[in-house]
Amino acid sequence: MKFEVTILGNSSATPIFNRNPTSQILNINESLLMIDCGEGTQQQLLLYGIKYNRIHHIFISHLHGDHFFGLIGLISSMNLNGRTRPLKLFGPKNLLEILQIQLKYSDTRLAFELEFVALDPNNTGLIYETRDYTVETIPLNHRIPCTGFIFREKQRLRKILKEKVEPLNIPAEYYPLIKKGIDYVDKSGKTYKAIDLTTDPDVPRSYAYCSDTLMDDGYIKYLTKIDTLYHEATFMHDMLDRAKETHHTTASEAATIAKNVGAKTLLIGHFSARYKDLAPLLAEARTVFEETYIAKQGETFEI
Amino acid sequence: MKFEVTILGNSSATPIFNRNPTSQILNINESLLMIDCGEGTQQQLLLYGIKYNRIHHIFISHLHGDHFFGLIGLISSMNLNGRTRPLKLFGPKNLLEILQIQLKYSDTRLAFELEFVALDPNNTGLIYETRDYTVETIPLNHRIPCTGFIFREKQRLRKILKEKVEPLNIPAEYYPLIKKGIDYVDKSGKTYKAIDLTTDPDVPRSYAYCSDTLMDDGYIKYLTKIDTLYHEATFMHDMLDRAKETHHTTASEAATIAKNVGAKTLLIGHFSARYKDLAPLLAEARTVFEETYIAKQGETFEI
Repeated sequence: MKFEVTILGNSSATPIFNRNPTSQILNINESLLMIDCGEGTQQQLLLYGIKYNRIHHIFISHLHGDHFFGLIGLISSMNLNGRTRPLKLFGPKNLLEILQIQLKYSDTRLAFELEFVALDPNNTGLIYETRDYTVETIPLNHRIPCTGFIFREKQRLRKILKEKVEPLNIPAEYYPLIKKGIDYVDKSGKTYKAIDLTTDPDVPRSYAYCSDTLMDDGYIKYLTKIDTLYHEATFMHDMLDRAKETHHTTASEAATIAKNVGAKTLLIGHFSARYKDLAPLLAEARTVFEETYIAKQGETFEI
Repeated sequence: MKFEVTILGNSSATPIFNRNPTSQILNINESLLMIDCGEGTQQQLLLYGIKYNRIHHIFISHLHGDHFFGLIGLISSMNLNGRTRPLKLFGPKNLLEILQIQLKYSDTRLAFELEFVALDPNNTGLIYETRDYTVETIPLNHRIPCTGFIFREKQRLRKILKEKVEPLNIPAEYYPLIKKGIDYVDKSGKTYKAIDLTTDPDVPRSYAYCSDTLMDDGYIKYLTKIDTLYHEATFMHDMLDRAKETHHTTASEAATIAKNVGAKTLLIGHFSARYKDLAPLLAEARTVFEETYIAKQGETFEI
């Protein structure tokens, strides 16, 4: 099953030359989920050839502009490009009011349903579930209410070994049972163990998104069994005071979190405009956690 | 005196690859005025090296998203980059509410004064005046209230001919009078005609901005003494029905207007996403009005 994230923007606060504000596209089994939507996100989608009407759901972490100013434009363009498929939008409760007032004054009536799910930043846990994956929220610690997200693949069924089942002429309608681990008994009463007819399913993977936040146990405790952790790293650690003051994290802190929660991979992003060169941020994080990567615009990371 | 316009975006409705939504920077004697501000305008300013805190005033024509979705991001970035100089904003009255709700929920307090001037789309005439120029509004005919703008240099004073005044030892405090055309009389009672000591001032120039609109005498009658006319040309003339239906103009209509009002130059923009190649639009307009140019992104046109 495909499970990968494409970075559309990695700048904090303001766009700078070649770095756009935050947005990501998560592809889970060809279902496209957007996380945050800074200004210019629709232009980034054009640049990287991602059709915006393929996006199923959008998740907005908080109402600082660098995480949502691109949303009204994206929604408008979806509408102008003939979207009819509903769009599910998860975000802070006041986000809907911001969108509605702009739709009202521009005299826009959406031709698709905008299903809005208001996130309660004080609640955590499951907010959405499909056949393939779940989405949980975690409480980040920022200057305004802010929500992180954990996307987890569901446990898949066992995988049928065709070379084992086909010679036995097992009717196809038994396959779903065998995949679930139920043994097959043929007409003569002979039992074939499901475990012998199948292989183990892939281990479910998970992706956690933590931006923007102060380093804080309040959300770190939820980062269990995370494969890829995306964590903001707005500053180098020599600016720890500034990071705390502005409720952000340093590269070294992000790496410490990844190490402590046992993540396999860390992606860092949301870089301050003061860093023209990102290599020092990467180097700092790697001294703590080797498997760190820059969440570089246009790059896709398999989870 | 410098009087030029730089194009930041020329796309209608939605951005497409390499074409951003509408925005322009007018430089009048180093005073920078922005006209419209579609999504991604602040990124365009970065791309073309225009510091956004140099912008004095912003004029928004109407509340379709492709003309204002970039404004809240630009204002936020001005604030984050330490602007203290007041920003004067002219736009439809509901624009302020749209900005304020986003500033409120993002917990942003601007460190500079945002002086908002609500435009009444039913009124026309002078809305702003400085030592160097005037701004008038004209009533465009679009699906929602929409205002066009005419920027006119003021009549300048006559220009002193140094080679004429210096040999006469005329005290410098008389120069302003001579520039106004007042003759100089020296101590012996001899009169020197101002007209002989000066040359004619430059002829004042003017720039008119008409987007978005149906071709309509209601505003065309105000396009008097226009040097450079910017006019939307969303469609080719074979799509006249679609242009009328959506309250837009064709390239050939824009050229007809430029010809009829006696403009010196026509810039066309606000092109539909359906036109990958803009050459046919230019060719169509030039069959009617030779001095037509594409309002190409990143290009600066002297007025």
